[in-house]
Parts: sequence; C-alpha cells; structure tokens
Amino acid sequence: MLYTSEKEKMLAGMPYDAWESELLADRMRAKSLCARFNMADPTDLDGRMAILRDLLSFKDTAHMEPNFFCDYGYNIEIGCNFYSNHNLTIVDVCKVTIGDNVLIAPHVMISTGTHPIDPVERQITEYGSPITIGNNVWIGGNASILPGVTIGDNCVIGAGSVVNKDIPANSVAVGNPCRVIRTINAH
Amino acid sequence: MLYTSEKEKMLAGMPYDAWESELLADRMRAKSLCARFNMADPTDLDGRMAILRDLLSFKDTAHMEPNFFCDYGYNIEIGCNFYSNHNLTIVDVCKVTIGDNVLIAPHVMISTGTHPIDPVERQITEYGSPITIGNNVWIGGNASILPGVTIGDNCVIGAGSVVNKDIPANSVAVGNPCRVIRTINAH
Amino acid sequence: MLYTSEKEKMLAGMPYDAWESELLADRMRAKSLCARFNMADPTDLDGRMAILRDLLSFKDTAHMEPNFFCDYGYNIEIGCNFYSNHNLTIVDVCKVTIGDNVLIAPHVMISTGTHPIDPVERQITEYGSPITIGNNVWIGGNASILPGVTIGDNCVIGAGSVVNKDIPANSVAVGNPCRVIRTINAH
Repeated sequence: MLYTSEKEKMLAGMPYDAWESELLADRMRAKSLCARFNMADPTDLDGRMAILRDLLSFKDTAHMEPNFFCDYGYNIEIGCNFYSNHNLTIVDVCKVTIGDNVLIAPHVMISTGTHPIDPVERQITEYGSPITIGNNVWIGGNASILPGVTIGDNCVIGAGSVVNKDIPANSVAVGNPCRVIRTINAH
Repeated sequence: MLYTSEKEKMLAGMPYDAWESELLADRMRAKSLCARFNMADPTDLDGRMAILRDLLSFKDTAHMEPNFFCDYGYNIEIGCNFYSNHNLTIVDVCKVTIGDNVLIAPHVMISTGTHPIDPVERQITEYGSPITIGNNVWIGGNASILPGVTIGDNCVIGAGSVVNKDIPANSVAVGNPCRVIRTINAH
Repeated sequence: MLYTSEKEKMLAGMPYDAWESELLADRMRAKSLCARFNMADPTDLDGRMAILRDLLSFKDTAHMEPNFFCDYGYNIEIGCNFYSNHNLTIVDVCKVTIGDNVLIAPHVMISTGTHPIDPVERQITEYGSPITIGNNVWIGGNASILPGVTIGDNCVIGAGSVVNKDIPANSVAVGNPCRVIRTINAH
C-alpha cells in the first residue's frame, strides 16, 4: 500500500514524522481546544461540552473534568454516558474507541503512541497502535492503558494498573502488569 | 434510617444520585474555587490560601500547590502544617480526614468514590466510603489512596503505591497493592 | 565544609529550610514561570520555549507540553531534542541532569526531594539527592523517578514504574519497584 501523507502513515500504525506540517497543524488545533476547555468556567457545562464536541466524537452526552489533553482529537470516538475525572490524557496518534457507559477515574493515561526499543531507531521513529475500550468499563485512578490494548465489555481495571495486554470481557484486572483476578458474572 | 436528600445518602455512604440539583450546585461551587486557585498568581500566597479556606477546612496553616481538584471541599478536614505538591486530586464524596504534619508528593489521588463491580448496577449506582490519614503521614508521588482506607499515624507510603487496605500506624508501606515492609520505631 | 546559606545546604544534599527567604523567592520565580508556560497559547511554540529558557537550561531545541511544574528550574539541565508530554513534575531541590534525545511520556514525576523516615525528624528535615538520566532514555507514562537515581544511556523505563535504584545503561526496566527485564544490544 502507498501512503500519500504522514497522517495516513500515522493512522495506519506505520512510522511517521510527527513534525510534518499537516500533523503539526492538526495538533496545534487540538491543543488549543484542550487549553480552551481546561480554562473554561467549570459551571458552564454546555459551553465546555461544545468545545469538546469540536475536538472529539461523542455518540451522546458526556461529562469530562479538566485538565484533559489529547494530540489530535479526531482519532477519539466516545460512546454514550462517558464520564472522565480530572487529568485524563489521551495520546491519540491512532484510533481510540471507547464504548458506552465508560467511567474513568482521575490521572489516567491512555496512549496509542510508542517507539522502537532500539535506541538509534527510537530517535527517528514513532508509531502507534489503536486502543479499544468496551462498554461499561470502569478504569481506576492513575492507571496507564498502553498501545494496542483492547479492554472487553464490563471490565473493572484497578487503580494504578498498567494495562499492556488485552483484558477479556467481564474481568476485574489489577496490577503492574495488569492481570485478571476475577471474572464478573454476565447477566 | 430515613434520608431526606441525596446529599445525606452520599455522606452516609449509601447509593446516591450525583446529578441531583443540590449536589450539582455544591460541586459547581467547589470546581469554581478549584479553578480560581489553580489560575491564581503563584506568588500571592495569602490570596491563594484564602481561596482554599473557602473550600476546605484547615486547623491551621497549610501550603498546597496547583493544580488541586476536589468534588465538594466541605468533606475534607485538614490538620496543621499540611503540604501537598502539584496535582493532588481528592474525590470527596465522603469524609476525608487528614491529620497534622501530613506531606503529599506530586500526582496523588485520594478517592472516596466507588461503584459496584456488577456492570448493570455500576451504571446506576455510585457511593463512597470515608478515608482517614493520621498525623505525620508522608505519601509518595503517583500514589492512589482508595475508598474506606485508614492510614495510621507516622506512616510512609511509597511512590506509586495503591493503598486498598488499612495501613497500621508506624509503617513504611509500598507497592501495588500497598503492603507494610517495615515498622518505624515509635518515640 | 561550612555552608553560608540554606541554598548551599540544599544543593549539597544537606538538611535545609525550604521556607528561608532566598529559596522562597527562587521558588516563587520558578512557579510564576511555570504558570506563564502552562497558560501560554499552545500554538506559540517560540514564545513558550522562551519562557522555558528563562526557567531551565537546554543544550538545544526541546518540546515540552503543559502542565509542567518544577521548584527552582536552575537545578535542571536538559540535553538536545528533549520531549516531555503533559503533566511532567520535577522536584528539583538537587541537580537533575537529563541527557540528549530523552523522551518522557505523560504524568511522570521526577523528584530529588526526600524526608527522613523517622516521623519526628521528618517534620523538621527536608533534603535532596541528585538524579541523572542518560542519553536516549525513554520514560513511560505515570512513572516515578526517585531521589538519587541514575538511569543509564539508552534505557527504556516502563509505564507506571517506580525507579528507586540505579538502572544500568541499555536496560529495559519495568515495575514497582522497577527492575531490569531485558538488555538492549548496544550498537
């Protein structure tokens, strides 16, 4: 396949140049909207939500607390009834798909961006891998959700977890690295 | 016991509706004061402290760095000589009692709020459990203090710890989950 | 050796009084510059970098995302091509030396500041220990880098790691506490 832009490479999970002009402009737009959201009057719920609707894609209502940061915004798709507490950062160089009824506690990082382990390669190469978070997922505070991970429906991810592998649906999973400790009875 | 408001239910640790008008108004007030504090001139120590005194209950002097976020403020009671570094978030749906001489490193989350594990119940139910932090406690960076926990006097909680059970007085405790690794000689 | 000021004691890693007037003034200057940086227009890359150059020492170009917080700034020395993502906090009561080509993910804490374990001593004593981060180091999100640590060249530190001991060059290290899990082939 031929990629005609750095953005296409980025979205395909190929190495790309983040400082190319189109991507830089996209990022500056997103960072400006994040700054407006983060400095907005906390009581102006409609005004704040309007800023977020310019930045992210929501299926329906949502409530997000400041500070929220992301890189592009257009790679983030959020289901109904989303709630994120303070200091959520989403590094969205690839698609981040979030289901319905997702709850995110404070200080969570969701990052699709990564680099090679090799230190020479690492300096010149950056790429991403998409993240999918199912319906009815609850993510605890200070958790890190890493590139390429899928978290299945109904999961509870404990505070401080580092999720570096897929978590099957209906799991309670905790720890660094995050491991399933219990299965939730499906209805 | 009969509860006459959502606020009474919340404070009693019963399931409650966080979007009911009284609680929403209380939260909007607290979020506004947090925003004023976070955007205040860092050199105006008295002015910043005055904002915090409108929000929280202090026994005496304190020093808190921005950004600080909480939900209600009136559920937080802080002893003498409190110091919290940058990016402390306290989810105070129930009482958070902090003793004298407590030191909190950057990026700490203290959360009294929780949800049921059951994914259907979870969407409609939210409740809390109080947190007590004793005198002379020192909490390391990126730590998470979870609902219902009591940390005894003189404890040191390591960086990155996830405290999901009580920690007895005079303990050094670390890890995810946080475990006692050493006892401090009492004076 | 005789120390003629609290600042000299602090930089030497001796117990010092952080509320002495010279150190307080230095800190107020740094916190003001951090506030200006954190509220600056995200698209004004040159203006934001100019604020950071007043605060920190850079060998060359760098890119840092808000919010960034530090205590003094003048204790932080950063090599070429530095990139730090959102919500980096550096507690720089002692020297923090960062090599070339260092990448820092969101929500990282680097802290040189510490206190004694003894709860009586702890209330009156504060001191620091320098941190050195080599060339080509990549630090994952939500990681904590603790006082006195040296991270060697080319290391990758996993998300959520708590680095409380030195990490030798060419290591992939993860966990709480952070341990080497793999050696990277040197070129």
